[in-house]
Amino acid sequence: MTRPSEDDLIARYFRPLATDPGAFRLGDDCATLTCPDGHELVLKTDAVAEGVHFFSEDTWSHVAQKALRVNLSDLAAKGARPLGYLLSLALPQDWTEPQLADFAKGLAQDQAAFSISLLGGDTIRSPKGLVITITVLGAVPSGRMARRGGARVGDRLYVSGTIGDAALGLKLRLDTGLAARLALQPMHAAHLLDRYLLPRPRSALADAVLADAAGAMDVSDGLVLDLTRMARVSGVVAELDVDAVPLSAAVRAAIAADPKLLATALTGGDDYELLLAISPERADSFERAAKATGIPVTCVGRALPINAGEASGIRFVDTRGLAGDLAAQGFSHF
Amino acid sequence: MTRPSEDDLIARYFRPLATDPGAFRLGDDCATLTCPDGHELVLKTDAVAEGVHFFSEDTWSHVAQKALRVNLSDLAAKGARPLGYLLSLALPQDWTEPQLADFAKGLAQDQAAFSISLLGGDTIRSPKGLVITITVLGAVPSGRMARRGGARVGDRLYVSGTIGDAALGLKLRLDTGLAARLALQPMHAAHLLDRYLLPRPRSALADAVLADAAGAMDVSDGLVLDLTRMARVSGVVAELDVDAVPLSAAVRAAIAADPKLLATALTGGDDYELLLAISPERADSFERAAKATGIPVTCVGRALPINAGEASGIRFVDTRGLAGDLAAQGFSHF
Repeated sequence: MTRPSEDDLIARYFRPLATDPGAFRLGDDCATLTCPDGHELVLKTDAVAEGVHFFSEDTWSHVAQKALRVNLSDLAAKGARPLGYLLSLALPQDWTEPQLADFAKGLAQDQAAFSISLLGGDTIRSPKGLVITITVLGAVPSGRMARRGGARVGDRLYVSGTIGDAALGLKLRLDTGLAARLALQPMHAAHLLDRYLLPRPRSALADAVLADAAGAMDVSDGLVLDLTRMARVSGVVAELDVDAVPLSAAVRAAIAADPKLLATALTGGDDYELLLAISPERADSFERAAKATGIPVTCVGRALPINAGEASGIRFVDTRGLAGDLAAQGFSHF
Repeated sequence: MTRPSEDDLIARYFRPLATDPGAFRLGDDCATLTCPDGHELVLKTDAVAEGVHFFSEDTWSHVAQKALRVNLSDLAAKGARPLGYLLSLALPQDWTEPQLADFAKGLAQDQAAFSISLLGGDTIRSPKGLVITITVLGAVPSGRMARRGGARVGDRLYVSGTIGDAALGLKLRLDTGLAARLALQPMHAAHLLDRYLLPRPRSALADAVLADAAGAMDVSDGLVLDLTRMARVSGVVAELDVDAVPLSAAVRAAIAADPKLLATALTGGDDYELLLAISPERADSFERAAKATGIPVTCVGRALPINAGEASGIRFVDTRGLAGDLAAQGFSHF
């Protein structure tokens, strides 16, 4: 099989993605980027690997989009506007040109959707399987990045979208008989599988985050673990009202068939929703701004002071005796 | 075997490396970076993988330093001052804490040597073997990045250091009997092996590059291929005087034993030296500035006009009939 050289491959599939002038059409060793006046850069790097974050049979356009979107989700959580990204692609021995063309197609679609350009990259041979590392660069007005540790006593805790869809989608991927055993409707199963395959970065909420959020992060390792992290670094207790956590119809159907799946939904990973601490004074402004984006946001709890003898962290308000199942649980890609 | 969680691992080994305030002690989702006034950012990402760019038996401090240095080499070639870096670390299943401690030690040493801070990162499980992806960020005065395509007819072509050491070092690693067959002195063999193991980014030359170079890149895929690339994108013919290419005593000894190794030296990869096109008017200034750094620089050829019917690219001045062996050769990590 004749395959293109690295230079040809870059020219054919990646040069069309390098639309920013600072990318120099991928014809130089480095890219340049100018940070807008009065702004600072917001940086994030995140990798996804075959057999760890996605399945070997996933199409490469989806995999490319997942790799980009998990990073864009972090920028959205910080209130940052995306500027561009760098791509490091470790290709398995048996890659094919149609796969690579599909990969580039996925990136092109997302570049258009999120108004972002490829700035530079690197292609290597992988020891095994496809590994995609993306570094995104965004901008916020200087000193204004929304911090994970910004939650204050009295703040309301909000999440965007719904929680647990991707975690149940992963369960369906790993256990092909599960959808039938749960008697899930095909459209519900398809929804869960799709939400695992393709995160939906909440970039449209970034301005509202910047304007109104005291504390902010994205939910990628499970709501329980990530809320615990926010509470600890903020020095508060996060009270989570389990009944208030927004669940999709598909997740509710799965939980109706197997109540244990509520814990999966709350502790599973890959939500890529936003978790925000908003002061009561900003709550109306935030809810109005969110409503204008069409992305639902739901208050799921509040930040409380740490009682004497208590540690910072999470506390559950639940009516189903789940607190014991949930405590200290969390999903790790690691 | 009990191993730390990802959060504990980051706290123990990587937080001490995150000295820049914009890294938020690795306690947030993203880092921030302010670009100095009047400057633009220079960006590069490059990955190294076990079994591809380094050997499984290499110590992790060396591997970490190689991963960082191949990126710093690109910044030096662009005349950029390093600001910070992001690290994406894909760990094999059988990593150990002593390996990770050694990895962090190697980074700490290089951070001190190159005045740079870890800004953020990501740790994942690798499908196989250690894979390290680093994104470096540097700065140059706005619009002043030294470009690969800047060589002009009449420019002198310079390289820093010596050429071919790492390529012969790799040959020694792959063929354990080779040093004996070439009757290399132990100190020469050790020099070649060391130069393969640890690149020496020419960061000290960055100011001279910025001040004097018309065209600039680093030599990582072999002098012949990289010079060809510079000539093509600059629209010139690069005349390379093979006899002028600076060779270390170790490389000269190897070539004396086997003359074919000259072609290996000129086309092998991993030099991480600078390749610069300097106008005759700037040559004295450049040579003086280089001398002050202690890094040798050598004029190895010149940029010529493209003759009618000729393509841009490389032309050899050589006294050993090697041109045929060298044409179109080049090393690819890919």
